[in-house]
Amino acid sequence: MRAALMERGRIRVEDVPDPTPAEGEVVVKSVACGICGSDLHAARHTEEFVATSIEAGGAFKLTTFDPVVLGHEFCAEVMESRGGFRAGDLVCSVPVLARPTAVAVGYSVEAPGGFGEYMLLSERLLMPVPAGTSKERAALTEPMAVGCHAVNMARLTGGEAVVVIGAGPVGLAVTANLKARGAGPVAVSELSARRRELAIEMGAHLVVDPRRESPYRLGDITRRDTLVVFECVGVPGMIDDIFLNVPHGARIVVVGVCLQMDRSRPLIAVNKELNVQYVLGYSVREFHDTLQRIADETLSVEPIVTHTVGLDGIAGAFDDLARPDAHGKVVVRPWN
Amino acid sequence: MRAALMERGRIRVEDVPDPTPAEGEVVVKSVACGICGSDLHAARHTEEFVATSIEAGGAFKLTTFDPVVLGHEFCAEVMESRGGFRAGDLVCSVPVLARPTAVAVGYSVEAPGGFGEYMLLSERLLMPVPAGTSKERAALTEPMAVGCHAVNMARLTGGEAVVVIGAGPVGLAVTANLKARGAGPVAVSELSARRRELAIEMGAHLVVDPRRESPYRLGDITRRDTLVVFECVGVPGMIDDIFLNVPHGARIVVVGVCLQMDRSRPLIAVNKELNVQYVLGYSVREFHDTLQRIADETLSVEPIVTHTVGLDGIAGAFDDLARPDAHGKVVVRPWN
Repeated sequence: MRAALMERGRIRVEDVPDPTPAEGEVVVKSVACGICGSDLHAARHTEEFVATSIEAGGAFKLTTFDPVVLGHEFCAEVMESRGGFRAGDLVCSVPVLARPTAVAVGYSVEAPGGFGEYMLLSERLLMPVPAGTSKERAALTEPMAVGCHAVNMARLTGGEAVVVIGAGPVGLAVTANLKARGAGPVAVSELSARRRELAIEMGAHLVVDPRRESPYRLGDITRRDTLVVFECVGVPGMIDDIFLNVPHGARIVVVGVCLQMDRSRPLIAVNKELNVQYVLGYSVREFHDTLQRIADETLSVEPIVTHTVGLDGIAGAFDDLARPDAHGKVVVRPWN
Repeated sequence: MRAALMERGRIRVEDVPDPTPAEGEVVVKSVACGICGSDLHAARHTEEFVATSIEAGGAFKLTTFDPVVLGHEFCAEVMESRGGFRAGDLVCSVPVLARPTAVAVGYSVEAPGGFGEYMLLSERLLMPVPAGTSKERAALTEPMAVGCHAVNMARLTGGEAVVVIGAGPVGLAVTANLKARGAGPVAVSELSARRRELAIEMGAHLVVDPRRESPYRLGDITRRDTLVVFECVGVPGMIDDIFLNVPHGARIVVVGVCLQMDRSRPLIAVNKELNVQYVLGYSVREFHDTLQRIADETLSVEPIVTHTVGLDGIAGAFDDLARPDAHGKVVVRPWN
């Protein structure tokens, strides 16, 4: 098959052997697959990503310097009728192969991701894409599920003001999920003007350039008893900056993944009795719910896709995505 | 009056003018007053304590280099019958004067603390000490209320395993409050053998020297679904060490006050979906409840007091308390 291989930051399109399914697995066609911030990070900082993956032992499992086919935000097409599925059906799946030791799809040599023509999926994890839902929208299930889970973990009871820090794909997914639940008011803080526009389209009530104004002092944000902040940037210093600027009793949900050692002042957090909830990923149930909400359009996803490319366009898209004003989400269509 | 004045780390006993009450305030005799870790810190690191107090704007309000009378864990005696109180009645109070701008008792020139013969208290904040409760036990209301609040903020629902890191007065107060609620199993991790013994007396089910064994792998601790950790040490590195060693989904209640910049790895917390609740102080209600529980002996406090001194013994006690094996809580009796 043709696939985009990533090896220590370089991406090249090559012919590689088709993947071979183990028992309980099917070969599917990758028909749409989003580029995730983690993909960029794995490519740009491969050494660090591999080291941290091994040390932290969590879900970010790029554990090899061998060439891998990235891509874990996919919609796939079934090739042979089997189980409840017919050839041509669109499916999604959480990006994991259900082997005795789970394998992360799109971060492992054994489980090529969606930036190639074919992939392996575990049959029992396949979810049908409801009729009428496009490949691109279905491919957004994975990143939107991250937002779903983050909002679930925030223990919202209604009446909270919400600030979302960062309007990259994670911040936008959080914003859309907040909108779908009627939470808010929701203020989104983002440096990029383009992304601020996307945040409004995804349901933010207010947007702010933090160089000009504080998101914590905007309009209705100050008039609620409880503030919930979603940190969706993931670079050192963000958490301490939030500590310093939020009011007493604020809850902080850390969704952005900071791979470096971070520094913060506990005394500030103590004086304000802050709560910090670190979150990761989503459950299979949240993934499924997200796919249904995308299908029935209760979850807004359309604005987030700003660009589609073929396999040959991935390397360029990785470069473009380094500039936050260039794109929202880029979706790869390996067969176009 | 005679009082122990602290000025940039030095403590001297002197005759100073008696304090003058404002409207709504009464002069009381300080009859027992515990030495708190914050007092030691204010004395040993005055420059940093003042700087941090001003920057953080919270409850740790030593905001002057002028000589102050420390002591905010007091039991006092009413001198003149007034309101519902008669001369000779024992009272407690949260260590605050209810002036238009609240003044921290024991950290301010205007509101001398319990390490002097007389103090000012706001009449409307006075709480009667129930009959039969000794001065020393009543003086433990304040530190025990810190433990009460920390446990309240932990959102315990029953069935959690609990690890308490550090068995100084804060860790012991947390342990006693956990015991009073039947929470646990409770494992206490502490370097000092003496303090480990105190932890057992205060209600710990297990104690461990963390140089020899991990508290997170002790006995019943591993057999519960949820782990709650109370960080009661407050030095840099504790939170990152907890991140590294706790299981997935643990909740961390930060009670120890780390005054320095701290470092931790968010990726570890993200991979484990940890929750960190920073807590401070207590409410008036929690303070009141704690005094009642000390009086009716549902809260164990007796073992915590290992030593009593007069005003002249404070300087020596501050030195002794720098060695964690020397003491639990030292109570000052200004009239002895």
